[in-house]
Amino acid sequence: MTDYSDLRAIYVNCTLKRSPEASHTQLLVDRSVAVMEKQGVTVEQVRAVDIDTAFGVYPDMTEHGWSSDDWPSVQSKVMAADILVLATPIWLGDKSSICTRVIERLYGSSGILNDRGQYAYYGRVAGCLVTGNEDGIKHVAMNVLYSLQHLGYSIPPQADAGWIGEAGPGASYGDPVNGAGTGFDNDFTNRNTTFMTWNLLHLARMLKDAGGIPAHGNQRSEWDAGSRFDYPNPEYR
Amino acid sequence: MTDYSDLRAIYVNCTLKRSPEASHTQLLVDRSVAVMEKQGVTVEQVRAVDIDTAFGVYPDMTEHGWSSDDWPSVQSKVMAADILVLATPIWLGDKSSICTRVIERLYGSSGILNDRGQYAYYGRVAGCLVTGNEDGIKHVAMNVLYSLQHLGYSIPPQADAGWIGEAGPGASYGDPVNGAGTGFDNDFTNRNTTFMTWNLLHLARMLKDAGGIPAHGNQRSEWDAGSRFDYPNPEYR
Amino acid sequence: MTDYSDLRAIYVNCTLKRSPEASHTQLLVDRSVAVMEKQGVTVEQVRAVDIDTAFGVYPDMTEHGWSSDDWPSVQSKVMAADILVLATPIWLGDKSSICTRVIERLYGSSGILNDRGQYAYYGRVAGCLVTGNEDGIKHVAMNVLYSLQHLGYSIPPQADAGWIGEAGPGASYGDPVNGAGTGFDNDFTNRNTTFMTWNLLHLARMLKDAGGIPAHGNQRSEWDAGSRFDYPNPEYR
Amino acid sequence: MTDYSDLRAIYVNCTLKRSPEASHTQLLVDRSVAVMEKQGVTVEQVRAVDIDTAFGVYPDMTEHGWSSDDWPSVQSKVMAADILVLATPIWLGDKSSICTRVIERLYGSSGILNDRGQYAYYGRVAGCLVTGNEDGIKHVAMNVLYSLQHLGYSIPPQADAGWIGEAGPGASYGDPVNGAGTGFDNDFTNRNTTFMTWNLLHLARMLKDAGGIPAHGNQRSEWDAGSRFDYPNPEYR
Repeated sequence: MTDYSDLRAIYVNCTLKRSPEASHTQLLVDRSVAVMEKQGVTVEQVRAVDIDTAFGVYPDMTEHGWSSDDWPSVQSKVMAADILVLATPIWLGDKSSICTRVIERLYGSSGILNDRGQYAYYGRVAGCLVTGNEDGIKHVAMNVLYSLQHLGYSIPPQADAGWIGEAGPGASYGDPVNGAGTGFDNDFTNRNTTFMTWNLLHLARMLKDAGGIPAHGNQRSEWDAGSRFDYPNPEYR
Repeated sequence: MTDYSDLRAIYVNCTLKRSPEASHTQLLVDRSVAVMEKQGVTVEQVRAVDIDTAFGVYPDMTEHGWSSDDWPSVQSKVMAADILVLATPIWLGDKSSICTRVIERLYGSSGILNDRGQYAYYGRVAGCLVTGNEDGIKHVAMNVLYSLQHLGYSIPPQADAGWIGEAGPGASYGDPVNGAGTGFDNDFTNRNTTFMTWNLLHLARMLKDAGGIPAHGNQRSEWDAGSRFDYPNPEYR
Repeated sequence: MTDYSDLRAIYVNCTLKRSPEASHTQLLVDRSVAVMEKQGVTVEQVRAVDIDTAFGVYPDMTEHGWSSDDWPSVQSKVMAADILVLATPIWLGDKSSICTRVIERLYGSSGILNDRGQYAYYGRVAGCLVTGNEDGIKHVAMNVLYSLQHLGYSIPPQADAGWIGEAGPGASYGDPVNGAGTGFDNDFTNRNTTFMTWNLLHLARMLKDAGGIPAHGNQRSEWDAGSRFDYPNPEYR
Repeated sequence: MTDYSDLRAIYVNCTLKRSPEASHTQLLVDRSVAVMEKQGVTVEQVRAVDIDTAFGVYPDMTEHGWSSDDWPSVQSKVMAADILVLATPIWLGDKSSICTRVIERLYGSSGILNDRGQYAYYGRVAGCLVTGNEDGIKHVAMNVLYSLQHLGYSIPPQADAGWIGEAGPGASYGDPVNGAGTGFDNDFTNRNTTFMTWNLLHLARMLKDAGGIPAHGNQRSEWDAGSRFDYPNPEYR
């Protein structure tokens, strides 16, 4: 049996509802978190809308005119974690505005390098969870996962999962209908959430054991110093 | 020094131009391929528009009414490779139609399982290269990388690279302007292509050495047989 | 009562299935077409996959090395119509590859101007219909409608409609389940399809009566000749 | 000469920078606004990040637990205008988080009907302006324009315009380079902005003169009361 108990994960729920209001998305987060905690993973959770987060793309916006900005405390938790899961509801087919803001703030630290000269997000894995009453899991997931891999996260197989209902307004995830939580027995949602969670664990384990992504051909510091890692300079044609 | 010489990669160029017409996208593919070949990787290349590919989402469309379909030969090469790179031009801000078709055909084999009951694409890594005269690398890449991870590929850090010019019509990648190939000296394009290529190598090496993604919590066959891998069944609320 | 009987519409069904194979998407097209025909509109229908369409972005690819290309006959029908509706299934959350190709070919005529110097597509209206077994109407529609307005079509209110089921595999639109066609009674799908159809009629009527979009400030020919239509040239700052 | 002086427009700049910090996006907004004002249009401008806007999808979030919410004052201006232009910068290839929030809040009023039973946004036109240092105008525009037409806006031809530079970091729109504002002389940007602006004027004029979109086949109130406007109910197949 593989030991995952040294791993740390952070789930950022990007619901528009502040605590303690109930979040449908949280219900799906709970199920993924339960699998991780069963393996002994230390799981941190943040509800982004509860945080006083400034607008902008710098690590700490108090250095750029904002009187307060609690994002740096979240960023510290993100950097302490091997696994990041962004969870979001869907509005008009898109991720929530607080999810967009979280991505902007993550992007604000994209220039930071680790001690090997790689982007600091390297060596971590990411996934995403999406719920809505209809339409948009894939659209949201392609945007979220793209941003995270662009920052330096590795994306394991099938790192997106979610629940939506049939076209049109209707119950949201977990809403009680006929004595059961809507979507709770959706085999596709449950299977994808399970596979996503385990694949995050597997790839995080692998990367942690390897000490991250090997540092060759991908160090910003080396590139800027002139290394080209066999990348050819084409003849003029 | 790590040995990559047992790895196999396939690059599928989704230009709309048939051979032997020149493809701008091919010029960027060439540079990434050169890095791989320098490490001894066996690289296969396919120009998708040259292949007689049927429409549909089954592995072999000749079994579904089409008189010919050469996709299965490409699919064999894809499954023989540890690394897949889809390369595409941009039209109206989107990937090419032959790129969409390639993804549909890859999707046609998404139900196939390996001998451990995982989706057959597991254990492989993917990236994408995009060129256009303006606008769309990220939009195209988020769609392509999403599809590939959804099929079972792992996506290493920063697995997208490309070149586009300033807003508006203009030279395409490699077009001669003032005695130089357009974009050939773009530091961002060159760096991203280099980092993508090396990160594909690193993660492919890691996965191959590990015998793929560990088979627990992600076997479709086990799930269908009733295993739930600690995924909780919530109480009604 | 408004008379719509001088209007012409064309519906291009971008199913991957060739005639006479049944297309789920066609079932939704049928309903929208029925409304138009009831008003006396002349409706042309094309199933794109049945047409021998070359790859490329020129009006007639036989002038660019292809031995055959039947797209120009479709393009003539498109230009004869006041209303264009693209209909497509969803694969991996995206429009079909033949839909992408149709858009590429429409784009191939985007440089053609009308006799007032406007882009030739001006004065026409467009909408889209989307069906899938789950997830993607909005993602597909935003891409399709964007492309069409970019070419010069006007988009009336709520010009997208479609049907999808709950997350996961399942019945497609019209599949018989318990003695009824799947989705046939979906109020949201039916309402949106109705509203889309009527809004296409209303805006087409309005544009036809006005002789198209007024020719001022939007003539490519005038712009190229130096007219700037009050667009200011900012001082350097 | 057509008279546009009874028209009202509102431009919402979704820069992440608060006043009075300079916004690159504003520089492009200024040029479009200048054309409108030259025709006597009354133009309102809002910088969204300056407004105390709550999270949520209700018209007034103070009725849902938020202690303050200044969005309703913006919404009033939106409803007073015939023309809405959303302007946004690009971050990681996507619209800004405040732009996403503006769309969520506009969506919050999507259920409101006019006195004919149509969605209240009907009869208005919309466009969008996008700036970034590289990549994403079309991706952003397809999302923004989709949302606005879905709410009930009409989209005239070529209702998106913007400026981006070559792939990679670089100057933003208007940044001084060699004594000139970056992008100020980009013919494509200038032409598209001009055409967008005039097409907004033309379609707004047409809709206003017609008293909005004709009320038949698109009234939510009538639909809910049972009218079907010739929409057929298919036989079971």
